[in-house]
Amino acid sequence: MTTEQLVQQIRKKQSFLCIGLDTDLEKIPPHLLNSDDPIFEFNKSIIDATHHLCVAYKPNTAFYEAYGIKGWKALKKTITYLNKNYPEIFTIADAKRGDIGNTSTRYAKAFFEDLHFDSVTVAPYMGKDSVEPFLSFNDKHTILLALTSNEGAFDYQTKKTENKELYKQVLQTAMTYTNAENLMFVVGATKAEYLTEIRKIVPDNFLLVPGVGAQGGSLEEVCKYGMNKDVGLLINSSRGIIYASQEKNFDKEAAKKAKELQLQMKSALIAM
Amino acid sequence: MTTEQLVQQIRKKQSFLCIGLDTDLEKIPPHLLNSDDPIFEFNKSIIDATHHLCVAYKPNTAFYEAYGIKGWKALKKTITYLNKNYPEIFTIADAKRGDIGNTSTRYAKAFFEDLHFDSVTVAPYMGKDSVEPFLSFNDKHTILLALTSNEGAFDYQTKKTENKELYKQVLQTAMTYTNAENLMFVVGATKAEYLTEIRKIVPDNFLLVPGVGAQGGSLEEVCKYGMNKDVGLLINSSRGIIYASQEKNFDKEAAKKAKELQLQMKSALIAM
Repeated sequence: MTTEQLVQQIRKKQSFLCIGLDTDLEKIPPHLLNSDDPIFEFNKSIIDATHHLCVAYKPNTAFYEAYGIKGWKALKKTITYLNKNYPEIFTIADAKRGDIGNTSTRYAKAFFEDLHFDSVTVAPYMGKDSVEPFLSFNDKHTILLALTSNEGAFDYQTKKTENKELYKQVLQTAMTYTNAENLMFVVGATKAEYLTEIRKIVPDNFLLVPGVGAQGGSLEEVCKYGMNKDVGLLINSSRGIIYASQEKNFDKEAAKKAKELQLQMKSALIAM
Repeated sequence: MTTEQLVQQIRKKQSFLCIGLDTDLEKIPPHLLNSDDPIFEFNKSIIDATHHLCVAYKPNTAFYEAYGIKGWKALKKTITYLNKNYPEIFTIADAKRGDIGNTSTRYAKAFFEDLHFDSVTVAPYMGKDSVEPFLSFNDKHTILLALTSNEGAFDYQTKKTENKELYKQVLQTAMTYTNAENLMFVVGATKAEYLTEIRKIVPDNFLLVPGVGAQGGSLEEVCKYGMNKDVGLLINSSRGIIYASQEKNFDKEAAKKAKELQLQMKSALIAM
């Protein structure tokens, strides 16, 4: 999917919501546990109930890998279902991968060619030759970790490197990589006050913003400091939506939570 | 496996060789491609021919993920085969994972509990709460990226943060994490000259050293600057060993290459 197509979807749906499919067998409604593939059944129900309210889904691969081959099968079924039934949806493999050159190419193939995701999250620590292999795929997007939503972000990301905080160095250096137009960046909503500075370095790129809701980030603040002329934001909510209820009507309850966020986003878009 | 058991194996085998199982269908002997599971058949042959010459195997997960579910099945069969037939071998999932707290726990479970690896490589960018979940498993080891062997390492890792290069900051900060005794560190052999400085910060931890051979790192240099009283090194070679030949006797040719390295390691151990 191109960035232009993503922006069109945002305008059409009046939403820049991304729903995180962090599917945990201990948290999904118990009645699903008797099905052949509870992880996929849960995802399918959530997707069918919420696809009109969001523009992206983001399965975090950790949740699938924890279940081994069964988990990978459920991930593959989920992305295949999404691509077949809702091709207008932007898909994100939240995998936080990264390795040396030829090995990064393998990861890129895993997520872009085998699983057919539109994008994948990548860790920046190994630098240019670990990131560029992901960037070389047409109409695929590499979402680089910049400033993450967790406490540990203060260990290194906000430390000054050559008079500039590491996350700024990452943003600035990454924009010099070949095919940098395929870059998006992860910026945690819990650190919305940093967005002004971030927008000075990457005015045009999309930001994937986790941490709204359960982690305490504010949607208003993120929009205020992070929006650009093309909206430029994908705001993720996982637990707050998908675990809204453990009852049989869990999908409708999830849709209610998604609708609440979508309405807030609509207001933000009107106020733009 | 405990660190003491690993050190015992090193002394017994007179080897601190780790063989990287970066298995690529385009590089393995063509006669294997007709088998049901060429990736596993290749790994099995390499392992059977070289297990007495090395103390560790390190499959890089990228190579398996690139083949989708088929790849994950081959990875699972490989680790299961290793644990059943060669339980004295230290196993490393070279996965370079890392995420926020509860999600990192999922990755730890995937590699330590579902796949039963002894260790996993982890990226440090997200800091304390992304690393500590891995450290909380008994007799399991977290191998943190510090100074990697690739060119991109100079993008951030060697940049000064608060008057200290980032990789040093990573080493120093990580040693303050809970259960830091379960930490090992990745330090590329292509940067052997940094080892003296690294040993000042982490005198006792094991270092996993990739980049000897194909990437140009020197075994002698690594030993000279990196060894500690418990040896403290695992030196990895992947392509240089496993792709020594594409003929029917590829396993014997791989063993020859492994034997060359083992003999160099034996000399280094005698000279200690």
